[in-house]
Amino acid sequence: MFKTIGIFTKSDDQRASNCLLELDSYLAAKAISTIHFLEPESDSAKLSISDPIDLAIVIGGDGTMLRVSRLLAPYGTPVVGINRGRLGFLTEISATNMLTDIQRVLDGNYFIQHRTMLSCQIEDNDKVVDQANALNDVVIGRGRIGRLIEFEIIVDGQRVNQTRGDGLIISTPTGSTAYALAADGPIIHPGLDVIALVPISPHTLSHRPIVINGSSNIEIRLINPEDTEVIVSVDGYMEYTIKNEEKIKISRSDTKVRLVHLTDYNYYDALRSKLGWSNPMS
Amino acid sequence: MFKTIGIFTKSDDQRASNCLLELDSYLAAKAISTIHFLEPESDSAKLSISDPIDLAIVIGGDGTMLRVSRLLAPYGTPVVGINRGRLGFLTEISATNMLTDIQRVLDGNYFIQHRTMLSCQIEDNDKVVDQANALNDVVIGRGRIGRLIEFEIIVDGQRVNQTRGDGLIISTPTGSTAYALAADGPIIHPGLDVIALVPISPHTLSHRPIVINGSSNIEIRLINPEDTEVIVSVDGYMEYTIKNEEKIKISRSDTKVRLVHLTDYNYYDALRSKLGWSNPMS
Amino acid sequence: MFKTIGIFTKSDDQRASNCLLELDSYLAAKAISTIHFLEPESDSAKLSISDPIDLAIVIGGDGTMLRVSRLLAPYGTPVVGINRGRLGFLTEISATNMLTDIQRVLDGNYFIQHRTMLSCQIEDNDKVVDQANALNDVVIGRGRIGRLIEFEIIVDGQRVNQTRGDGLIISTPTGSTAYALAADGPIIHPGLDVIALVPISPHTLSHRPIVINGSSNIEIRLINPEDTEVIVSVDGYMEYTIKNEEKIKISRSDTKVRLVHLTDYNYYDALRSKLGWSNPMS
Amino acid sequence: MFKTIGIFTKSDDQRASNCLLELDSYLAAKAISTIHFLEPESDSAKLSISDPIDLAIVIGGDGTMLRVSRLLAPYGTPVVGINRGRLGFLTEISATNMLTDIQRVLDGNYFIQHRTMLSCQIEDNDKVVDQANALNDVVIGRGRIGRLIEFEIIVDGQRVNQTRGDGLIISTPTGSTAYALAADGPIIHPGLDVIALVPISPHTLSHRPIVINGSSNIEIRLINPEDTEVIVSVDGYMEYTIKNEEKIKISRSDTKVRLVHLTDYNYYDALRSKLGWSNPMS
Repeated sequence: MFKTIGIFTKSDDQRASNCLLELDSYLAAKAISTIHFLEPESDSAKLSISDPIDLAIVIGGDGTMLRVSRLLAPYGTPVVGINRGRLGFLTEISATNMLTDIQRVLDGNYFIQHRTMLSCQIEDNDKVVDQANALNDVVIGRGRIGRLIEFEIIVDGQRVNQTRGDGLIISTPTGSTAYALAADGPIIHPGLDVIALVPISPHTLSHRPIVINGSSNIEIRLINPEDTEVIVSVDGYMEYTIKNEEKIKISRSDTKVRLVHLTDYNYYDALRSKLGWSNPMS
Repeated sequence: MFKTIGIFTKSDDQRASNCLLELDSYLAAKAISTIHFLEPESDSAKLSISDPIDLAIVIGGDGTMLRVSRLLAPYGTPVVGINRGRLGFLTEISATNMLTDIQRVLDGNYFIQHRTMLSCQIEDNDKVVDQANALNDVVIGRGRIGRLIEFEIIVDGQRVNQTRGDGLIISTPTGSTAYALAADGPIIHPGLDVIALVPISPHTLSHRPIVINGSSNIEIRLINPEDTEVIVSVDGYMEYTIKNEEKIKISRSDTKVRLVHLTDYNYYDALRSKLGWSNPMS
Repeated sequence: MFKTIGIFTKSDDQRASNCLLELDSYLAAKAISTIHFLEPESDSAKLSISDPIDLAIVIGGDGTMLRVSRLLAPYGTPVVGINRGRLGFLTEISATNMLTDIQRVLDGNYFIQHRTMLSCQIEDNDKVVDQANALNDVVIGRGRIGRLIEFEIIVDGQRVNQTRGDGLIISTPTGSTAYALAADGPIIHPGLDVIALVPISPHTLSHRPIVINGSSNIEIRLINPEDTEVIVSVDGYMEYTIKNEEKIKISRSDTKVRLVHLTDYNYYDALRSKLGWSNPMS
Repeated sequence: MFKTIGIFTKSDDQRASNCLLELDSYLAAKAISTIHFLEPESDSAKLSISDPIDLAIVIGGDGTMLRVSRLLAPYGTPVVGINRGRLGFLTEISATNMLTDIQRVLDGNYFIQHRTMLSCQIEDNDKVVDQANALNDVVIGRGRIGRLIEFEIIVDGQRVNQTRGDGLIISTPTGSTAYALAADGPIIHPGLDVIALVPISPHTLSHRPIVINGSSNIEIRLINPEDTEVIVSVDGYMEYTIKNEEKIKISRSDTKVRLVHLTDYNYYDALRSKLGWSNPMS
């Protein structure tokens, strides 16, 4: 049973506000407490929670969902999304079915899927200078158009390869339907404990994405970083400009996101209906 | 310690015979018994082994390696390959280093990697009419050129999609560097417990390979099978022509192949040196 | 002005017959003579035309359209298609708009697009043993699943490459949206005088389709043909099994298909609406 | 006969300087005048040529070759490259064969291949605010990582599609082996009069490169440009940041580059030896 539910919206989203009001009064009539949170502007913002929440409902797009999920992961709070954005691959409930589907959650007709996150550390001489968690992906990319970057990948101490190109996506299964998909990576079922390494426009004919163990320790060393500007981005938001000697280390995070799915959720249906996956030519 | 070693060759391979003689006398001088087996012509052939063998050495190409590995999987015998074929992705030891590398195995400088296999069953009205194990892949393909086949994929009771095209590859991680790679599938580390579904020339713009859990139960139902000839192939050898009402069911096999790797084996090195993976343009 | 119009249908297509009747009476009321042809069963069938026809209307799918277009190419007869099939990329007019759109053609609101065809010859010791024209493609493929074929491509006397795999598609621009697209070839505007060479599941990481001049003379030489069964298919229908010493030669055909497009025809619209090209994720 | 030859090098390239000295004395002994040019720092730099040159020899990499070729295109000067760079797909002559191969050019054992260039114009309210020519490609890309751009493509007044992603490459046949190849575009024979439109990491499953007529007028209109930073890059050097209302127009340039090839030049050989195209797995 959920006694206290946190509802998360973006501050400037009018449509989300309407959903919020409707949802709030619906839950109030059920004698469920609600607390309203505005999406924090950065991951460093701490949530000040006087009473703990049993469930988080996110009203917004996948971007808001990503940010709230990352913030709540350490608390183990289950998260469910109501789609007010463009694609809504993570936000399972559509706004039109909001009350019906939330009632199904309240009735216990859901299951929780644990989603792996990645921890990305920037190290300067073995000292951690920055850290962030990714539910989708860590992207190492060139800062400026038209100038290739070159980097070496090491996994568990073994040299994997050296690549020149626009960059590299280190993706969770959740992220396999985000940027990694645009860069021609495979779709990976979100329940798997694996990581995908997907090069972005690699300057070779013989590249191919590779799927490795979720327990892998990944290190990226830049080749001639002084010649180029290299940016590390986490879930598309944090942007860290690498300084020459710094290394990028990525491994599975200790915390997981707890995503709420309705009992009849079919991942493959979502692939077809939301991404148009394997749609036959008409 | 290996007391008895089985050595496997193809009957008509003269170069393998020379290797065999050299290896035989080397092992005899070490007081290790050897038994020579010719590669059986089919998987249904039983091995008649008077004394059990502690290690299998295969002299040949990946095809011979695949067949012997499948046969020995139920016995749990470790297998190591000496490459006499074209590519030799599974046969780790090159013929030129044969004695040195075999000595390293005898000295214990190796580790065993368990490789998942798939079990493929053909069912007619819930009755199993044929069964085979695959170390690389199960391929469902059209019998004749130029005529598309159409099929529905069901995983763990959930409809995945319906595809028209030349066929479908259901691949183990080991098979990800074989036919699945030619059909644009991802490379998958051989230690993972996953299965890749890779369509062959799908008749849609929006297809993409998908990686699912190794514990999945996969079922393939043909659409209008009476219009086309559909062939099921296992590791490129068994060919079974599907009759109209039959279903194809694929799941992880109970047995695994135990592959011997030298201690300094680096899978990524093999990808680069044998497949030319991620080679920079010269 | 069209005085005599030939209408082509498949013999066993009831829906096409209804269209035919409706179209026939509509044209009769306009004092336009019509002649009804059943789609010939093979390209070798000669059309017996007592009176020449000024326009061919094909009622059916892309398969019927391909066959009739090839047959009429030597006569220079313009061809327009009414879609009764699955995809209808070549059959521009939908059955629901049939009379309106045919009237637009009668009113002169159309343009003629010339579509290049390929001529494929099988030669045994410089003697032509078979010949056929392709509006879509010539496909060289393996006869049986799981056995790779290997071949060398020579263009205008220059060695292009040697490939092992499932085969090769030699495609016209018209064919670039057919089988070549499923094999990951580029889309090519139908007005261009080029040929695409698209490998089918090539057994290498570093392959890529290539687009060459429409005036090229292409020769395919099989490597070790005695080991495999190699089939040549033209527009998905003719199937010729190559004998060991035979060569396959492909070049632009002397004749072109004259395809009728309505004045407001937009090729890119057809790509998006019929193939789902570049559809955004929903 | 070449009376006066211009030799072009980069100012800071010591190895190129050595080649220059060697070449200079070789040509002097043949009574051929040489003029030495340093690669200009920008395309806006005018070449001050007191005496016209009959042939340009470029010592350097493909970057230098691109810049000098573009500069000389209006003069119709034939250009040949001596490779001192990494890949050297455009610089046909290797440094080790320099004198032998230059002698072959002097002896007339060469042919000239005309390479199409693109003209890129930035327009603000129908006023041209910037212009540049591309021998390889015009790239429209996002300025910052992780933020998609969205744009509409119009060709000859017809809407082609609307795409969200990292950007778009508009490539000549020459450029098809450069950045467009990394973005999964087809290889296009350099003699063809076509243009390839290759999306960069498009945010859809159903995209595919398209090849259109070289005479096409291409227009790119940005969707919501105020939300993102959009950069136009030409042959990887010019970088123009688009202001909100500006349009990007691209069409075939009036001038062509005249590239010198040795008589036995085989484009397909270069694809295989320099790009590793279609190399078999070892």
